[in-house]
Amino acid sequence: MNFISDNSVGVAPEIMSALMEANRGPSMPYGNDDWTRRVERKLADIFEREVRVFPVATGTAANALSIATLVPPYGSLYAHEEAHVMVDECGAPEFYSGAKLKPLPGAHGKLTPEVLDRALTRDTSGDVHQVIPTAISLTQATEAGTVYKPAELQAIAEVARRHKVRLHMDGARFANAMASLGVPARQATWEAGIDVLSLGATKGGCMAAEAVVFFDPALAESFGHRRMRGGHLVSKMRFVSVQLEAYLSDGLWLKLARHANAMAQRLAQGLAAALPRLPGAKLLHPVEANELFVQLPGGVITGLRQAGFQFDDWPAEEGQAVRLVTAFNTEAADVEQLLRTLGNLIGRAA
Amino acid sequence: MNFISDNSVGVAPEIMSALMEANRGPSMPYGNDDWTRRVERKLADIFEREVRVFPVATGTAANALSIATLVPPYGSLYAHEEAHVMVDECGAPEFYSGAKLKPLPGAHGKLTPEVLDRALTRDTSGDVHQVIPTAISLTQATEAGTVYKPAELQAIAEVARRHKVRLHMDGARFANAMASLGVPARQATWEAGIDVLSLGATKGGCMAAEAVVFFDPALAESFGHRRMRGGHLVSKMRFVSVQLEAYLSDGLWLKLARHANAMAQRLAQGLAAALPRLPGAKLLHPVEANELFVQLPGGVITGLRQAGFQFDDWPAEEGQAVRLVTAFNTEAADVEQLLRTLGNLIGRAA
Amino acid sequence: MNFISDNSVGVAPEIMSALMEANRGPSMPYGNDDWTRRVERKLADIFEREVRVFPVATGTAANALSIATLVPPYGSLYAHEEAHVMVDECGAPEFYSGAKLKPLPGAHGKLTPEVLDRALTRDTSGDVHQVIPTAISLTQATEAGTVYKPAELQAIAEVARRHKVRLHMDGARFANAMASLGVPARQATWEAGIDVLSLGATKGGCMAAEAVVFFDPALAESFGHRRMRGGHLVSKMRFVSVQLEAYLSDGLWLKLARHANAMAQRLAQGLAAALPRLPGAKLLHPVEANELFVQLPGGVITGLRQAGFQFDDWPAEEGQAVRLVTAFNTEAADVEQLLRTLGNLIGRAA
Amino acid sequence: MNFISDNSVGVAPEIMSALMEANRGPSMPYGNDDWTRRVERKLADIFEREVRVFPVATGTAANALSIATLVPPYGSLYAHEEAHVMVDECGAPEFYSGAKLKPLPGAHGKLTPEVLDRALTRDTSGDVHQVIPTAISLTQATEAGTVYKPAELQAIAEVARRHKVRLHMDGARFANAMASLGVPARQATWEAGIDVLSLGATKGGCMAAEAVVFFDPALAESFGHRRMRGGHLVSKMRFVSVQLEAYLSDGLWLKLARHANAMAQRLAQGLAAALPRLPGAKLLHPVEANELFVQLPGGVITGLRQAGFQFDDWPAEEGQAVRLVTAFNTEAADVEQLLRTLGNLIGRAA
Repeated sequence: MNFISDNSVGVAPEIMSALMEANRGPSMPYGNDDWTRRVERKLADIFEREVRVFPVATGTAANALSIATLVPPYGSLYAHEEAHVMVDECGAPEFYSGAKLKPLPGAHGKLTPEVLDRALTRDTSGDVHQVIPTAISLTQATEAGTVYKPAELQAIAEVARRHKVRLHMDGARFANAMASLGVPARQATWEAGIDVLSLGATKGGCMAAEAVVFFDPALAESFGHRRMRGGHLVSKMRFVSVQLEAYLSDGLWLKLARHANAMAQRLAQGLAAALPRLPGAKLLHPVEANELFVQLPGGVITGLRQAGFQFDDWPAEEGQAVRLVTAFNTEAADVEQLLRTLGNLIGRAA
Repeated sequence: MNFISDNSVGVAPEIMSALMEANRGPSMPYGNDDWTRRVERKLADIFEREVRVFPVATGTAANALSIATLVPPYGSLYAHEEAHVMVDECGAPEFYSGAKLKPLPGAHGKLTPEVLDRALTRDTSGDVHQVIPTAISLTQATEAGTVYKPAELQAIAEVARRHKVRLHMDGARFANAMASLGVPARQATWEAGIDVLSLGATKGGCMAAEAVVFFDPALAESFGHRRMRGGHLVSKMRFVSVQLEAYLSDGLWLKLARHANAMAQRLAQGLAAALPRLPGAKLLHPVEANELFVQLPGGVITGLRQAGFQFDDWPAEEGQAVRLVTAFNTEAADVEQLLRTLGNLIGRAA
Repeated sequence: MNFISDNSVGVAPEIMSALMEANRGPSMPYGNDDWTRRVERKLADIFEREVRVFPVATGTAANALSIATLVPPYGSLYAHEEAHVMVDECGAPEFYSGAKLKPLPGAHGKLTPEVLDRALTRDTSGDVHQVIPTAISLTQATEAGTVYKPAELQAIAEVARRHKVRLHMDGARFANAMASLGVPARQATWEAGIDVLSLGATKGGCMAAEAVVFFDPALAESFGHRRMRGGHLVSKMRFVSVQLEAYLSDGLWLKLARHANAMAQRLAQGLAAALPRLPGAKLLHPVEANELFVQLPGGVITGLRQAGFQFDDWPAEEGQAVRLVTAFNTEAADVEQLLRTLGNLIGRAA
Repeated sequence: MNFISDNSVGVAPEIMSALMEANRGPSMPYGNDDWTRRVERKLADIFEREVRVFPVATGTAANALSIATLVPPYGSLYAHEEAHVMVDECGAPEFYSGAKLKPLPGAHGKLTPEVLDRALTRDTSGDVHQVIPTAISLTQATEAGTVYKPAELQAIAEVARRHKVRLHMDGARFANAMASLGVPARQATWEAGIDVLSLGATKGGCMAAEAVVFFDPALAESFGHRRMRGGHLVSKMRFVSVQLEAYLSDGLWLKLARHANAMAQRLAQGLAAALPRLPGAKLLHPVEANELFVQLPGGVITGLRQAGFQFDDWPAEEGQAVRLVTAFNTEAADVEQLLRTLGNLIGRAA
């Protein structure tokens, strides 16, 4: 019963079938194929505007390459201090861009306009001793399992515009965010000021596929060369693109994300009911996508593991905490069993 | 009828099946899975010694990351002036290592001990104004479709040892080379002085899978972090590793390569018989793997294309040339038809 | 009356004379000269052990190159959040090393063992997703004009040793620190665990000269090539080295620093007497070297400027603040006049 | 009797005096001083147009930083295979720009329009696998002691324009070239298509001073930040700028260069008369600036050294060769003595 991560699960059957289908006859390599072209058109439909799209195989590649197109070596990028680009990519954004990443605090994984405005004002010196503030990266859904509302994005974009910096969105769990928001994709992206989006699909049910989506084609100019130079131009590209095509077709991406989110909500409800009985136990963040962060007594954590549940420990301000992640294929029965087991453990602990 | 490249073809059915099979249940991400462990063991068997193995999704990543572990930013790497690392990776080896790549000439895509010795002697100054010669990269099979014999590798390794530089092998078509040589893998790798091998599998029949093989584990120390920092640690790694596992099992890699090589040999024989009738037409290099480089009159090239054959133009010293690449699934009928069509075109031209 | 910075003043006469003297006849370029050799010997005497010494022309070069020898591209360096390496070198340490710089807080410009231990414990994951903690940079004297005592350095070194990280010291104002401490140089450097020191001389009275001092010669191995690659190997090196030689001879470096420190102390005493009369005015940090940070009402700041005093504004938590820097040639009369003027302004303000 | 290099000599007395003079009172650091402003105006006068000027302390910094403003990481720079940027800067241009340097051959240290056109045509693929040809660097005077004529520069610029690449000039010995050409500076720079010039002054008689001169201010936009990030913003900048000011005032730069050139011409004449008597001895290149490359029998080389002459060995196609460099302060007596000694050695050898 796996709640470790949405990348410890396999591939959605629809996507696996599409992969099989794509294995017919030859096709031009390096993205000069019909699948890749169709993905770009499909994303233009989804975002209701022209876009430039580049498929890659990993989320870190998508982020690092996007950031490198936005920020020069003597520039800086702001991100939440717990963002993946900040702490979980072994410095990939810095490697690709040369830029300085500046960590900012924020409750529940979110940056606020106020925090950004203060930092940008402080750091805009016009002096060559300081790197030039150039872009902000927002994670959607956030590292804390929360989701920026369109109005929140717009408020941040307003600060960005005022300080003349660009906006990147790390959408490793973009589908979960969109399923949660229930608004047209444009409202939570380019209409809200996002310049470039790393649209994740691997965690959503693909094998290894992410799409970098440029809402301003002018920004994409160097991307092709940068991707090749980074070793991220997959030669048999159709097999990456077909994953994206299947994922984005007929609303599959949202359907899969809705399931994962629903499982997370069921867990959240169960926990909300159960945790108050347990001193020191609580949900650390609102549950708005497919991740839950739960502070629990060590004994309860051990008990859950002994009962066969898998999940990661998570750093917490005080006490111990765990992260539970639901996925496109998380089974309702597993969720119920986890809640039942937790209920028993709490009963025993109380 | 596709002779463009071995990456314009699809995936071998055995590998596709293994991919399907691997899509069962969860597994730990980032290479902490059984498939990845089995690949390392399988390569230890094939090379008859302990090895450290890192799967990645592209050949450029395999090369650039390998080279970065061998060469410091103030060092240099020697390679053939037409090597993929030199002219077809948009500077990826330089990006990853910071090192300077020094091009060297050589007939039929091969470096010789003499050329290397001369360059290394010239460039070993001990002066901080010059980068430090640190490694050599050999392509096996070469960019010209030729293959280094073990004795040739050993002679180069002897020069490398004398000058205290390391040996990297770009084995994007390693299987074709090994099928051509018919010797145990160790004889053409570590026994012949190779330190690190980029073992290609994508061109051989996989979807997107290459293995970096370290024969000296001490050299591999920083590889894990470098791979992550480059965005090349695939999260659902089992789907890369299972390709390698299937490819390397039961001699599939050699079987597929033997077929591609045999198709190339059939083409070579047909061409050897036909070309002498056509002034200015000739094979530019010995055919030892699965690539043929053919100088042809422009009219004949056009005629072949009009007849439905696909292939790339290739730069030639004089006149015009094309490259024909055979693959694991090239059909004998296509080869025969190409030779027949060529015969007709020559008949008409003569 | 200049209190802007110790780099807005000129060159000490003893050093200017030495420069003239060195301009006789030819000498080998690139540091193969007697002046450079003598500097190394002189520093061996001062530190009472063998050292490897590399002269460069700027403090940023000294820091960035030192850090690059200590930290690999996938490593991290900890420094105070207001350290020069962190905020005033436009990302030079990152450029030269590739490493990630991690800012840490600390009162009065100082890092503490506790803050470091917490950060190192948090960041030592052994996981390739995270950069490897590799070194700490301490500024001596600090950006806040305070000085680490040997015992403070030892306590930090103990944390560093436990976490297997190296210690770099940014000694742009090393002479001011040593003049303040009054202990043998070894006690505040290698005996206290420092591995590499950027020994500043420009701010102390030279024209453009800094010495990178390696206490462990093994760490210096790549420095020569890195310096050249960074464009920091001055061809007529004798003219950099002779500055260092003169500066370090006959205790000149300490004599000049003692004067600057004494002027700062006189200012500090005067301010300590005057400021209590002025609400909201105060010294922000203890005055232990040659910099003072003073919170003052805006009107008083304006008044000082109108009276002809030059100094920089400085960011403060609340209200307004300025930085006053004394130098090797600050005149006592200027200090007295500043205090008198301030007294008058306070009288008027009160 | 030193013929090793123009950086093994000292500093011209006029420049030393100016340095002394500049050491009066405080001045704003980091180039916000009058000396730096005057240098920019002086160069505007010399080049008869607006220019943007950045002083740095080394020629490698000037070259590497200039190139980094012209060439993106996925671009390439062409230079002569023996150019300083190619073989004597330990990869600094690559380090600063990330770009690939492509070596091209050419007689007597010069690139020709034909060689450049062929390379640019070959390398302009529009394919992301190849780096984008972006700039050419010409060395003036060349590494072989020859000088590009304005018409030669224009012909190269015409090729550059056609292929849309920029032109950088490494003018480490720009004064020697201009003294040799005897034309207005504009004719051999921006009028002939040069975009950026590294104007060397150290070899010409300064202590450590070079000026990066942008003829198109738009290209200079990122230079300030790049210079700081490279650690090349000298804090007490007036002492670099005053060297340039003195060097460029009253035609001193040309006067000093004319002397060096005249000494080289005297040597060249003497050698032209003497060498024909000695089998295998010859001048390897035309003598057009202040460097001579002489093929000589080993015994004669040894003899010259035993007689007290200092110079470097130089690589030669066949036999042995040496380089003789004259400087602003080379004494005519030394030149005569060298010729006399050579005459005696030839007499004995014959």
